[in-house]
Amino acid sequence: VSRQSFSLGELAEHTGSRLQGNADTLIHTVATLEQAQPGALSFLANPRYRQALATTQASAVVVPDQIQLDNPPFSRLHNRNPYLAFAQIARLLNPLPVAEPGIDPSAVVHAQAQIAADAQIGPGVHIGADARIGRGCVIDAGAVIGESVVLGDHCRIGCNVSVLAAASLGQRVHIAAGAVIGSDGFGFAQADTHWEAVPQLGSVVLGDDVAIGANTTIDRGSQGDTVIEAGCKLDNLVQIAHNVHIGAHTVIAASSGISGSTRIGAHCALGGQVGIAGHLTIVDGCTFTGMTMVTGHVREPGVYSSGIPAAPNREWRRNAVRFGQLESMARRLDALEKQLNNAGERPDE
Amino acid sequence: VSRQSFSLGELAEHTGSRLQGNADTLIHTVATLEQAQPGALSFLANPRYRQALATTQASAVVVPDQIQLDNPPFSRLHNRNPYLAFAQIARLLNPLPVAEPGIDPSAVVHAQAQIAADAQIGPGVHIGADARIGRGCVIDAGAVIGESVVLGDHCRIGCNVSVLAAASLGQRVHIAAGAVIGSDGFGFAQADTHWEAVPQLGSVVLGDDVAIGANTTIDRGSQGDTVIEAGCKLDNLVQIAHNVHIGAHTVIAASSGISGSTRIGAHCALGGQVGIAGHLTIVDGCTFTGMTMVTGHVREPGVYSSGIPAAPNREWRRNAVRFGQLESMARRLDALEKQLNNAGERPDE
Amino acid sequence: VSRQSFSLGELAEHTGSRLQGNADTLIHTVATLEQAQPGALSFLANPRYRQALATTQASAVVVPDQIQLDNPPFSRLHNRNPYLAFAQIARLLNPLPVAEPGIDPSAVVHAQAQIAADAQIGPGVHIGADARIGRGCVIDAGAVIGESVVLGDHCRIGCNVSVLAAASLGQRVHIAAGAVIGSDGFGFAQADTHWEAVPQLGSVVLGDDVAIGANTTIDRGSQGDTVIEAGCKLDNLVQIAHNVHIGAHTVIAASSGISGSTRIGAHCALGGQVGIAGHLTIVDGCTFTGMTMVTGHVREPGVYSSGIPAAPNREWRRNAVRFGQLESMARRLDALEKQLNNAGERPDE
Repeated sequence: VSRQSFSLGELAEHTGSRLQGNADTLIHTVATLEQAQPGALSFLANPRYRQALATTQASAVVVPDQIQLDNPPFSRLHNRNPYLAFAQIARLLNPLPVAEPGIDPSAVVHAQAQIAADAQIGPGVHIGADARIGRGCVIDAGAVIGESVVLGDHCRIGCNVSVLAAASLGQRVHIAAGAVIGSDGFGFAQADTHWEAVPQLGSVVLGDDVAIGANTTIDRGSQGDTVIEAGCKLDNLVQIAHNVHIGAHTVIAASSGISGSTRIGAHCALGGQVGIAGHLTIVDGCTFTGMTMVTGHVREPGVYSSGIPAAPNREWRRNAVRFGQLESMARRLDALEKQLNNAGERPDE
Repeated sequence: VSRQSFSLGELAEHTGSRLQGNADTLIHTVATLEQAQPGALSFLANPRYRQALATTQASAVVVPDQIQLDNPPFSRLHNRNPYLAFAQIARLLNPLPVAEPGIDPSAVVHAQAQIAADAQIGPGVHIGADARIGRGCVIDAGAVIGESVVLGDHCRIGCNVSVLAAASLGQRVHIAAGAVIGSDGFGFAQADTHWEAVPQLGSVVLGDDVAIGANTTIDRGSQGDTVIEAGCKLDNLVQIAHNVHIGAHTVIAASSGISGSTRIGAHCALGGQVGIAGHLTIVDGCTFTGMTMVTGHVREPGVYSSGIPAAPNREWRRNAVRFGQLESMARRLDALEKQLNNAGERPDE
Repeated sequence: VSRQSFSLGELAEHTGSRLQGNADTLIHTVATLEQAQPGALSFLANPRYRQALATTQASAVVVPDQIQLDNPPFSRLHNRNPYLAFAQIARLLNPLPVAEPGIDPSAVVHAQAQIAADAQIGPGVHIGADARIGRGCVIDAGAVIGESVVLGDHCRIGCNVSVLAAASLGQRVHIAAGAVIGSDGFGFAQADTHWEAVPQLGSVVLGDDVAIGANTTIDRGSQGDTVIEAGCKLDNLVQIAHNVHIGAHTVIAASSGISGSTRIGAHCALGGQVGIAGHLTIVDGCTFTGMTMVTGHVREPGVYSSGIPAAPNREWRRNAVRFGQLESMARRLDALEKQLNNAGERPDE
C-alpha cells in the first residue's frame, strides 16, 4: 500500500521522537508487531503486549518514552504517545489520495451547483441545485448531494452516501459509504386515529474534521438544526436523531443511538450499542461503556455503565427470574433485619 | 423554508382552534418558543415547559384548551391537541413539494414498467420490468425499484433506496434514503456441515401512509409476506425480519429489531433499540420503552420495560457481579427466613 | 414464483427421503402448512406444530423420520432433517436466476477491470480499476465494486452495495442490498486536543458461500485483514469492526455488533442485537441468545445469555432501583447470616 520510504531519522523528526538505533534505516511500511517484516515499523502502546517485542521482525518500533529495553535487534522511536506517532508515520507512508480533478461523464450535476475546479466527482454521482462543493473534495460513485448542501474544502463523501436537507459540512469532513445525512426526523403528532407527520424543517451541521461511519444516519432538525461539532468521530450504523447536539471531539462507537434533542458534551466517548434517551443533557468528559442505557441527565464527568455481562444460559435464566423478585427480596431483607434487631434487642428488655 | 403567509384567523379555522388575539396577524413560519421571531408561530404542548412562554418572541402560540394565561404579548390558538395543530400549520406553511413530472434522462426504466404520467423519476433511478409507479410518486436519485414492485399514488422513495421482491406499497408511503425493502429473509437450514439457504419466496406489503426511516431493512417473507399495516411509522436503522406482521398505526423508534414471524398489534409503540424475539404475539396497545428485550408473548396492553439504567462504572461493576449471585442470594434469604421463623416459633413450643 | 413441477418420486430421490404416498403426484410450489393448496409441498420440522397437519391442504409434507401418522390425506416424505429437505425442494422449484450475461450500457466499468464474459452487470453499476469479477456473477443496480476488489465465481451483489478496500470474495458470496464491505475501521489516536485518524490499510476477506445481509457493514482491517470464513451467514444491519476474525459456518442475526480484533470461532450462533467487546476470543461452538452482552473471553462451548426480560413498567422500575442496591443487599445478607449464626450458636454455649 505504501509508495515511499523514509529514514528513521526523518520519522523521528516528523513525530518528535527520540531515536535509538540507526537513523539511516529505511522504513517503507507499517505493520503489527506480529506481522512486521524487515523494512516495517511497528508500535507498542500498551506495555501489556510487551512480549511481542521478543519475536517481532520489525526494523523499528515506536515505544513509550520511559520503557527500558535490553538491547533489542530493532531500532526504537521513543515517544510519549506511541500510537499517535505510529498513526502519523502510517499517514506519511500512506497519504490520503489527492483528488483527481474532474466530473465523471456519468455524474448528473445541476447547472446551479458550484463545484470547485479541483474537486473529484465520481461516476453516477448526483449533485442538486445550489449545492456547493469545496476545494479538493472527493465524492465517490453513487453519492447524492442534495439541493443547497454545502461541503467545505477537502471533504470525502463515500459511495452511495446521501447528504440532504441543505446540510452544511465543514472542512475535511469524511462520510463513509452508505451513510445518510439529513433524513427527516422521527416526528409525528398523535391524532385521534392516526399519526400525523410533523414537517421536519431544520438541517444538519457537521463541524471541521468530523468523521461519519458507514450506513450511519443523522436526521435533520425539526425546527433548529442537528449539530455535530468539530472533531467528532462516529462509527458505523450510529443513529443521531433530530436536534441532537454533540460537543467537539466526542467519539461514538458502532450501533449506538442518540434520541431526539439530547445534548452530549465535548470529549465524551460512547462504546458500541449505547442508547441515550431523548431530551437529556450529558456533560463534557463522560464515557459510556458498550451497551449502556442512559435514561437520565449526566451531570458529572466519569465512566458510566449498565447491562449484565453474559453468563451460561442456565445460570442466567435463574438470576433473571430473581431480578423480577428483587423488590420483594429487598422487602424480605428489611423485614428480617427488623425482626432480628427486635429479637436482638429483646435481651436488653 | 416557508413560501406563504396565513392569517391567524385562517390558521384557527384550519386547525379548529379558538383564537385569542389578532385574527389578522400574519404568520409566515413556525419555530420553537426559544427560537421564534415575530411572524412565527410556536406551540406549547406540555405545561412543564410553560416558563418558555415568558420570553418567547413568537407572534402566536398554540396552547392547550384549558390553559390560563395572564394577558401575554402573543396571540393564542387554544386547541385540545396543540402539537397536532402545530403540525398542521407547519405543513400548511411547508407543503410537501409536488412531483415535477418526468423521467430524468439518466434513469434506466424498463420498457415494461408502468410509470404514471405525473410521477417524478430522479437521476440514476432504476426501475425494473413490470414495476408500477402510481400517480404523483417522487423517486429520488439512485433509488432502485425492482421487478414487479407496485407503488400506490403519491409515494416518496428516498435516495439510494432499494425496493425489491415484488413489494407492494399503498398510497402515500414514504421510504427514507438508504432503506432496503424486500431483502431476503435470514433463513438457513442446518445441514451436517454447513447452512443451506432456504429460498425466500414471499414479499413485503406496506399499507397506506406507512413511513420507513433511513437505512431501515425489511425482509421479504419466506413463504407468506412480511406485512406492515396502514399508518405505521418506522424510524431509522430498524430491522424487520421475514414474516413479521405489524398492526396499523404502530410506531417503532430507531435501531429496534423484530425477529421472524412475530406479530405486533395495532397502536403499539416501541422505543429505540428494542428487541423482540421471533414467533411471538404482542397484543394491540403495547408500549415498550427503549432497549427493552421482549422474549415472550405479551397478552395485555400496557407499558413494558427492561434493562438497567446507567450508573457510575465502579458501582455498576459491583452490582453486576451480585446479579450473578442472585439465585444464591435468594436461597440464602429463604434459609434465613426459615431459620428465623423456626427460631421465632420456639417460644411457643 | 415456481416455474416447474416435480413428481414426489423425483423429490424423494432428490432429498434422500422415504416416500409414503403417491410417487406420481406433481408438486409445483412450496408453502406453509396453513397456506398450502393442492399441488403444494409443506414441511413439519417441529412436532410441536403437529396439529397443523390436521387441516393442511398440502399434497405432500416433509416429516421427521420417526413420526407416526394415522393415514393422513397427504403424501409424506420422511427425512431425518425435514427443514433441509424442504429447503432443497424449494430451491429446486425456485432456482436462483442464472446470470444474464452482459454489461448494462449505463454501467461505468474501468478499462482495467476484468469481467467474466458471462457475468451480469446491472444499470448504474460502477467497477473500478483492476477489479476482477468471476464467472456467473450478478451485480445489481447501483452497486459499486471498488479498485482491485476480487469476486469469485457466482457471487451476487445486491443493489446499492459498496465493496471497497480491495476486498476479496470467495465463490458464491451473496451480499444483500445496501451493505458496505471494506469501509475504514474506527481507529483514532488521541492527540492532546483531538483525535487523529489511524490509516486503515488492511482489507476484507470473505470465504466461499458467505452471505451478508442488507445494510450490514464490514470494516477493512487496520493493518491485517478482517476475515469471515467460509459458510458464515450474517443478517441485516450487523457491524463487523476492523480485524475481526469469524470462523467458518458461524451465523449472526440482525443488528449484532462485533468490536475490533475479536476472534469468534467456527459454528457459533449469535442472536439479534448481541454485542461483543473488542480483543476477545470466543471458542468454536458458542451460542449467544439475543441482546447478550459479551465482555470477556469465552473458553467453553455452550449457550450464553444476558439481559433482563421485559416486565410491566411499574414492576421493572422498582426492580431496576433495587439492582442499584444489590451490593448493599448482599452485604446486609452477609451481616444477617453472621448475626444469626452467632445467635444460633449461643444455645450451645
